[in-house]
Amino acid sequence: MDVDVFLTPNAIQADLLNAVAVVIDALRMTSVAAIAMENGCAGLMPVAGVQEAMDVARESGALLGGERNALRINGFDFSNSPDEYTREKIQGRRLVMTTTNGTRAILAASAAKRVLLGAFVNAKAVAEAVRHADKLVIICAGTYGAFTMEDALAAGSILARMAACGIEMTLKDGALAARMLYQGAGGDMHAALKKTAHYQRLETLGLAKDLDFCLREDILRVAPERGRDGWFA
Amino acid sequence: MDVDVFLTPNAIQADLLNAVAVVIDALRMTSVAAIAMENGCAGLMPVAGVQEAMDVARESGALLGGERNALRINGFDFSNSPDEYTREKIQGRRLVMTTTNGTRAILAASAAKRVLLGAFVNAKAVAEAVRHADKLVIICAGTYGAFTMEDALAAGSILARMAACGIEMTLKDGALAARMLYQGAGGDMHAALKKTAHYQRLETLGLAKDLDFCLREDILRVAPERGRDGWFA
Repeated sequence: MDVDVFLTPNAIQADLLNAVAVVIDALRMTSVAAIAMENGCAGLMPVAGVQEAMDVARESGALLGGERNALRINGFDFSNSPDEYTREKIQGRRLVMTTTNGTRAILAASAAKRVLLGAFVNAKAVAEAVRHADKLVIICAGTYGAFTMEDALAAGSILARMAACGIEMTLKDGALAARMLYQGAGGDMHAALKKTAHYQRLETLGLAKDLDFCLREDILRVAPERGRDGWFA
Repeated sequence: MDVDVFLTPNAIQADLLNAVAVVIDALRMTSVAAIAMENGCAGLMPVAGVQEAMDVARESGALLGGERNALRINGFDFSNSPDEYTREKIQGRRLVMTTTNGTRAILAASAAKRVLLGAFVNAKAVAEAVRHADKLVIICAGTYGAFTMEDALAAGSILARMAACGIEMTLKDGALAARMLYQGAGGDMHAALKKTAHYQRLETLGLAKDLDFCLREDILRVAPERGRDGWFA
């Protein structure tokens, strides 16, 4: 399998048409997507704009989740904190999400043959879901187009699990870098990220609980994937 | 000093206006720029297009160097191999260069307060030249907008020399990644790069000698910098 990691979402210039894409926004959107699915969410639609998200949710009877500048959006059912997406609230319901970086990266990957949502929390589940791909591209959402360490480490986490599954991979430069960074982190994501801007911002906002959740590996069994109707399930 | 590394040249969305920029295209353009300067080149002008390069060279009486798809350009004095830029040929002469990735990244950094050219071969010289910057942005040229490992490792090489100089740095995510990747390489750039596409392509083209030159650290003392007239010296 040919494997690349786009360390910034700007770099989506390659041909995604025949690729399986995994989009990562580990802090926090794709982690939220995974917990929502694990707790029985009936389908997730990523949408770029707030008004558009409200329109789609109204038409589809879906709940609304997401953030702007890491904060709750007025009138939304959920912010971007994973602990809000309880089974009690989300089971059997559809969910429309809009976030600053994650949803945009997902939409930018729309030309891919398959699109999945990956994070630390479901790294192994994603690794297993993509095991028969010919060509895999992992897309790091980053922040406003810039590189963020956490998404590269989550990509490395998925690659490590693919290797552990015995999947033979030819790694391009971005994938080699993600693997090296993950190895360099030595399993301690908090230590590797504590000096990074996004981690510190979430800490400052009192969201250390979200960091604790999102940086745990393999605690969920779902690999959300875009369906024929555009909803992730 | 605030320090960031743009792992792909697409990511030049930040405000470069008050930043010192170091552009890296370690294989091979900025390495070639350094050897040309070390050997007495009177000034280097990076130009995007082949015809434009020919026009500028004719008007300025400069020699022409560069590549397209790693190969010599018809009618040019030099290809992109550092060993062609001997003192005998380049001393006292101006040089116009056009290359696939390096010259474009340099031009994309033009809004920066200062622009320097960095590589493994002059990592320490660049580290010393930027030591009094308030804000430093190292821009990796990559390949056609995509990440390449060698430029990230060269950025890490420069960061390591800045740290050795005792420069206090606040590293953003891209800089943290470059430092981790450089540390992961353990000083053996050939080993770290031998599975990467660009390294292998140059090897296939019979240019192992260029790899040997470009991957040696601190063998040159020059830090080419853009002058008031736009020529690097």
